[in-house]
Amino acid sequence: MNLIAEIKKGSRHALARVISKIENRDEDVSELMKTLYPMTGKAEIWGITGPPGAGKSTLTDRLTTDLRKQGKRVGIVCVDPSSPFTGGAILGDRIRMQSHYLDDGVFIRSLGTRGKHGGLSHATKEVVLALDAAGFDVVIVETAGVGQTELEVLKLAQTVIVVLVPESGDSIQVMKAGLMEIADVFAVNKSDRPEADKLIKELISMVSLVEQPQDAWIIPVQKTEATKDQGITGLIGNIKKHQTYLTQSGKRADKTKVFIRNEITDILAEKLENELTDVFASQKGKEILDQVVNRKLDPYAAAEKIKD
Amino acid sequence: MNLIAEIKKGSRHALARVISKIENRDEDVSELMKTLYPMTGKAEIWGITGPPGAGKSTLTDRLTTDLRKQGKRVGIVCVDPSSPFTGGAILGDRIRMQSHYLDDGVFIRSLGTRGKHGGLSHATKEVVLALDAAGFDVVIVETAGVGQTELEVLKLAQTVIVVLVPESGDSIQVMKAGLMEIADVFAVNKSDRPEADKLIKELISMVSLVEQPQDAWIIPVQKTEATKDQGITGLIGNIKKHQTYLTQSGKRADKTKVFIRNEITDILAEKLENELTDVFASQKGKEILDQVVNRKLDPYAAAEKIKD
Repeated sequence: MNLIAEIKKGSRHALARVISKIENRDEDVSELMKTLYPMTGKAEIWGITGPPGAGKSTLTDRLTTDLRKQGKRVGIVCVDPSSPFTGGAILGDRIRMQSHYLDDGVFIRSLGTRGKHGGLSHATKEVVLALDAAGFDVVIVETAGVGQTELEVLKLAQTVIVVLVPESGDSIQVMKAGLMEIADVFAVNKSDRPEADKLIKELISMVSLVEQPQDAWIIPVQKTEATKDQGITGLIGNIKKHQTYLTQSGKRADKTKVFIRNEITDILAEKLENELTDVFASQKGKEILDQVVNRKLDPYAAAEKIKD
Repeated sequence: MNLIAEIKKGSRHALARVISKIENRDEDVSELMKTLYPMTGKAEIWGITGPPGAGKSTLTDRLTTDLRKQGKRVGIVCVDPSSPFTGGAILGDRIRMQSHYLDDGVFIRSLGTRGKHGGLSHATKEVVLALDAAGFDVVIVETAGVGQTELEVLKLAQTVIVVLVPESGDSIQVMKAGLMEIADVFAVNKSDRPEADKLIKELISMVSLVEQPQDAWIIPVQKTEATKDQGITGLIGNIKKHQTYLTQSGKRADKTKVFIRNEITDILAEKLENELTDVFASQKGKEILDQVVNRKLDPYAAAEKIKD
């Protein structure tokens, strides 16, 4: 476990290697995670999502600059499970963050789609744990859109910032997209645009209309113009308030439990997939498959046989 | 199993109910699928994918018209796991297919994202089996984009048609997106546009450049203009050729095996998730979770304990 010792000493190289191992699902991932896990639990985990072109990367960039001024170390994980048809934009986004590439207090890593079912959200979870263990104070997980995999990924954040722009539609669409359920803070970016005030008003009234228990968190709506560095301090203030709320309300423990529950589920699902790979390669597995192909056995009965 | 008897008699109502049960993961799904499975294996399963705006729905509509003229019954499953931010287009697309809504020989169903991990591709697989069992000759699975869930969904098709338009980029992007690996037929739609011939040439040379074993299928590139009904007969011809190739080369059985292997994996993954829901609700599960939250146990060790 030389790698872990080096991570403790602050080696970026060792951290990068561990993250690659996590991404590639190397055989020693479980051993690495077992050793890393006791070192975790200190980082704040923020999630950033929103439609393409909302300015998520610029916002992440500005938040990072602000956090660096406060002396905080920042880990950034960019997750893009979306269609390769539209995948071209991501690299361009990354370029905007290059101001931080030479900064030792910032670690940026992009994760793309890898083979299996749920593989991306599992890997992302463990990369976040690795960054936490490596002593980053804030880990920002940025993802485009809120599809199935993205929602899975956002579940691991304590505070989720949903970035909207006037063009991303009215508040009814926000409701329909289920964004109310995942957002802890709304950022209305590009707020110099004409429709911005309308969207902000709608969001505020929507938030106030939702019936909530008395001690519930009320989602703040923050106006930002990331390219002009406007509203960033306000946004960080709102995130801080949410983090304080999590601690004071006891909800932080609930979030941690969801995170861990999902991680355990992912571990067991991965184990199942590996076991099935072995079974399907065996004589028994091949015979069962043949029986199903010939419709002598149905898939549910086959599943029972395979687990015998 | 009254529902199955009614499906056998051709009841659309019974079929719709069974599909809803599959989508909602009702408790009796396994029993239903066990009964339906011996009735499957006759349908051709086509997959259609491509970037938003490529004209997939119009193409599906025209293919359906053509198949109907041949007296074939067509089941259509539209799958949209993508971001709700861009989900608005789907309903509009559906409207274009309304010419078939009153036709008894056509059954159309849209499936959206449902809760769990991999739940959508699992449900889609079983909906396809239900349509197959109900006697549809061709089942078309249409999905937007080729993200993780979409690729999962496309694996269940025997013949995958990738629809491109001149604007969807050059052949290098097609390569990068891994489309070569999933396409059995390329359709270059909106082929009246100026850049179409360039894209077609590029695709043809790209296909010819890939080193292949002698008996391999060579992906045909079909020019279409779905809105003007151009190239549809040619496209169906190419799909038919691919279906014949599958049978003659013995590759059909391989595809069936992949389908069934995935279905068995999904069944067991769902079973695992249900089991874990029970464990996490139990005293034992809660204690283990607490130990992980307090970092007295790591998630990998917890996973081992939970499966004891």
